[in-house]
Amino acid sequence: MAIPEKIKISSYNSLHGFLKSIPLFKDCDPGVVDDLLAGSHLEHYPKGKLLFIYGDNAKRYYIIKEGWVKLFRETLDGMQAVIDIIPKQSLFGERALFEGGIYPFSAEVVEPSVILSLSLDRLGKRIADNPRLSRSMLESIASYRGNLEREIEHRLLQSAPQRIGCFILQFIEKKSANGKNEPVVIKLPYDKTLIAARLGMQPETFSRSLAKLKKATGIKVRGSVVEFDELRQITEYTCHACTSKYPCYRSPQ
Amino acid sequence: MAIPEKIKISSYNSLHGFLKSIPLFKDCDPGVVDDLLAGSHLEHYPKGKLLFIYGDNAKRYYIIKEGWVKLFRETLDGMQAVIDIIPKQSLFGERALFEGGIYPFSAEVVEPSVILSLSLDRLGKRIADNPRLSRSMLESIASYRGNLEREIEHRLLQSAPQRIGCFILQFIEKKSANGKNEPVVIKLPYDKTLIAARLGMQPETFSRSLAKLKKATGIKVRGSVVEFDELRQITEYTCHACTSKYPCYRSPQ
Repeated sequence: MAIPEKIKISSYNSLHGFLKSIPLFKDCDPGVVDDLLAGSHLEHYPKGKLLFIYGDNAKRYYIIKEGWVKLFRETLDGMQAVIDIIPKQSLFGERALFEGGIYPFSAEVVEPSVILSLSLDRLGKRIADNPRLSRSMLESIASYRGNLEREIEHRLLQSAPQRIGCFILQFIEKKSANGKNEPVVIKLPYDKTLIAARLGMQPETFSRSLAKLKKATGIKVRGSVVEFDELRQITEYTCHACTSKYPCYRSPQ
Repeated sequence: MAIPEKIKISSYNSLHGFLKSIPLFKDCDPGVVDDLLAGSHLEHYPKGKLLFIYGDNAKRYYIIKEGWVKLFRETLDGMQAVIDIIPKQSLFGERALFEGGIYPFSAEVVEPSVILSLSLDRLGKRIADNPRLSRSMLESIASYRGNLEREIEHRLLQSAPQRIGCFILQFIEKKSANGKNEPVVIKLPYDKTLIAARLGMQPETFSRSLAKLKKATGIKVRGSVVEFDELRQITEYTCHACTSKYPCYRSPQ
């Protein structure tokens, strides 16, 4: 069994379990997981760390163990397009395998994070010789594609306040979503400037729209804490301008 | 060799060649192509024909031989979100394989079309036992995902006239794109109401923005014909608000 050099044997089992907890790898045999973990590094990164840049030759892919990572591209004019801000359990950089070996976006750590970096070459080989992994990869990419389609749809059909409501709904745990008439308190995962960028809004539009959402639904927002008496305050306002039915959790990448 | 029932043997070879011309199937052995074609139907459809509805149980997937198909979803309010309008050589409906066997959108023919319908079950089996096909499917889905990301980016960074310019640029053939200082004439592929829907614009916004684009770039639009003296009239106006470099043809699905 190949043991990654940079981590201690005591933590190896937990990495093995971590990889198996990612939907993409859940059906992998232990030998395949070991092979994928060979040469992997688990590292802490501060906010602001740039992991790679759009167009870089790709040697590694990444899985977030803790924290948040922003995927983005920049125009010649220096404008930034945030493609996504992804949470723990998300995989990124693996798409370079199918795009000529270059990263199709830049990646920046936006909250202090713990990230596992793995060999892209090994992943490519295991996908080629392992139909189950290949199938999981197809499901993972297809599902993320569904998220992107929903994002395009929301930018078309929902108003800015509705899109903020929809964003907030994503952070409600499933148990709250099932019992629809209980008070709910959630904490926003990163700062409001980033949420605005994630939603493709100017900060002023975001502030104005958040105020509208509060007025229309009666939710309370204090700093990063959002409180509401029952879930349907938001769902009634937000979800009728969407083609999916709530709950509609976005699947991890 | 299994011969599809609904088509004559004389046209069978051409269907075989057609399937091999689709990027997804280009590396398939002849036996695999034969197997995929078994039970396939090639049919003509009029404008307006609904092929399937979001949520339907999926038994077939489709490839456009001639024409255009609109993929869309509807909200509870009856608003329509156009996900894409796809040209000949495009595949659709295959994603149901990875989404629990249901179609993730509705599909409607928007210009008189010739469409090949194939068995989803056979495709699923051949992907499972054929690593090369599985790999091609991964590349195909990853590439379409890249198109969706670019679409989200454009809705964020480009103005409405720039987005129309970008849409027009997609219909210029590669040979014109390489010789950048020649006059170019193109024909828009479907009517302007549909183009507006594809771009997620209200018809009035579309008209106003097209007028702005004409004024800013000097291009001429007469009915469905667009003329301009040289390509950079549009690229200079449009592409600086994008993170991709022209030419950046969208890959077929």
